[in-house]
Amino acid sequence: MAGITVSMEALVSEFKRLPGIGTKTAERLAFFILQSSKEQVQALARAMIHVKETIGFCKICNNLADEKLCTICQDPRRDNGFLCVVEHPRDVAAIEKAGGFHGVYHVLLGSLSPLDGVGPKDIKIAGLLERVRTGRFHEVILATDSDTEGETTALYLAKHLKVSHVKITRVAQGLPMGSHLEYADQATLARAFEGRREL
Amino acid sequence: MAGITVSMEALVSEFKRLPGIGTKTAERLAFFILQSSKEQVQALARAMIHVKETIGFCKICNNLADEKLCTICQDPRRDNGFLCVVEHPRDVAAIEKAGGFHGVYHVLLGSLSPLDGVGPKDIKIAGLLERVRTGRFHEVILATDSDTEGETTALYLAKHLKVSHVKITRVAQGLPMGSHLEYADQATLARAFEGRREL
Repeated sequence: MAGITVSMEALVSEFKRLPGIGTKTAERLAFFILQSSKEQVQALARAMIHVKETIGFCKICNNLADEKLCTICQDPRRDNGFLCVVEHPRDVAAIEKAGGFHGVYHVLLGSLSPLDGVGPKDIKIAGLLERVRTGRFHEVILATDSDTEGETTALYLAKHLKVSHVKITRVAQGLPMGSHLEYADQATLARAFEGRREL
Repeated sequence: MAGITVSMEALVSEFKRLPGIGTKTAERLAFFILQSSKEQVQALARAMIHVKETIGFCKICNNLADEKLCTICQDPRRDNGFLCVVEHPRDVAAIEKAGGFHGVYHVLLGSLSPLDGVGPKDIKIAGLLERVRTGRFHEVILATDSDTEGETTALYLAKHLKVSHVKITRVAQGLPMGSHLEYADQATLARAFEGRREL
């Protein structure tokens, strides 16, 4: 960023090193920092370092956790009969925000991607199979992404979970709410028709 | 953010306190921090605090500066005959990025806004008038924003700079490059016609 001080340039390049942050966003964030009070910036810096120092993965479900277990696995009000399998901790956050699901989770910390050399041993599948085998789940809901890797992972899991004689479901695929049918891609439209329900 | 740890929630709320950062962006940034290495996060935290500790305003032009003078006022290659007046340091950054202007700047650190009680004494106008009076500028380019406050400020400055018998110009207003005429608002279209040039 020409015309700006050395310390601002340094801040912009530190922001740019974060995953998914480009030049424009980094510059915008640097100006946000500049406009904030010194106390705000110090509190933010502390919170950032604190997160990196304290956060680990839940021993049961691999969700993010400050302690041994995540807040969900610690919560006695959750329904241990329903297990939702997701790829990432941010998926847990999204589902919790949507509300409606009151069971527990299993976070795979990735998805199967043979092309990238990610096989079943590279993500948390063994723990899931063991957990389902020894647990008393009524239903395992496969909520991996709807992309190639997520679909592959769901198919793989469905196949290997069958031996546990548990009900296995996959989240519905179809038109996103509020979207227009004419703008939907072919694959989504096909799924929307396949998965149609009687009213 | 439900389903997420206490330390992540704390980080999200710190991000949300930054000006212009909403919940979605704060959550996205918190996950970026989480995905980054400890070293990256520490370097970022240091750079943030360093910016707040070192940055002040240039004694000549009010641009951001790590030292007494900003990098532009320190640069002997800049053309001291041309003075560009802007509202904020981020405007300097934008103009420098676009390239093409090789003169020096004066940053007002705001714009006149009678409705918000911001008068000529609340922004860096006195210093500008003095600088133009005693300096040897060929031209003063008024590059305040094209909104009501920016226009008001430009008109005010034009009136008060006239006594210095310097050439005063205003940046062109019209259709943004790459835009479609049919989507332009009426005010912009009117300006585009007013400011038309013979080819």
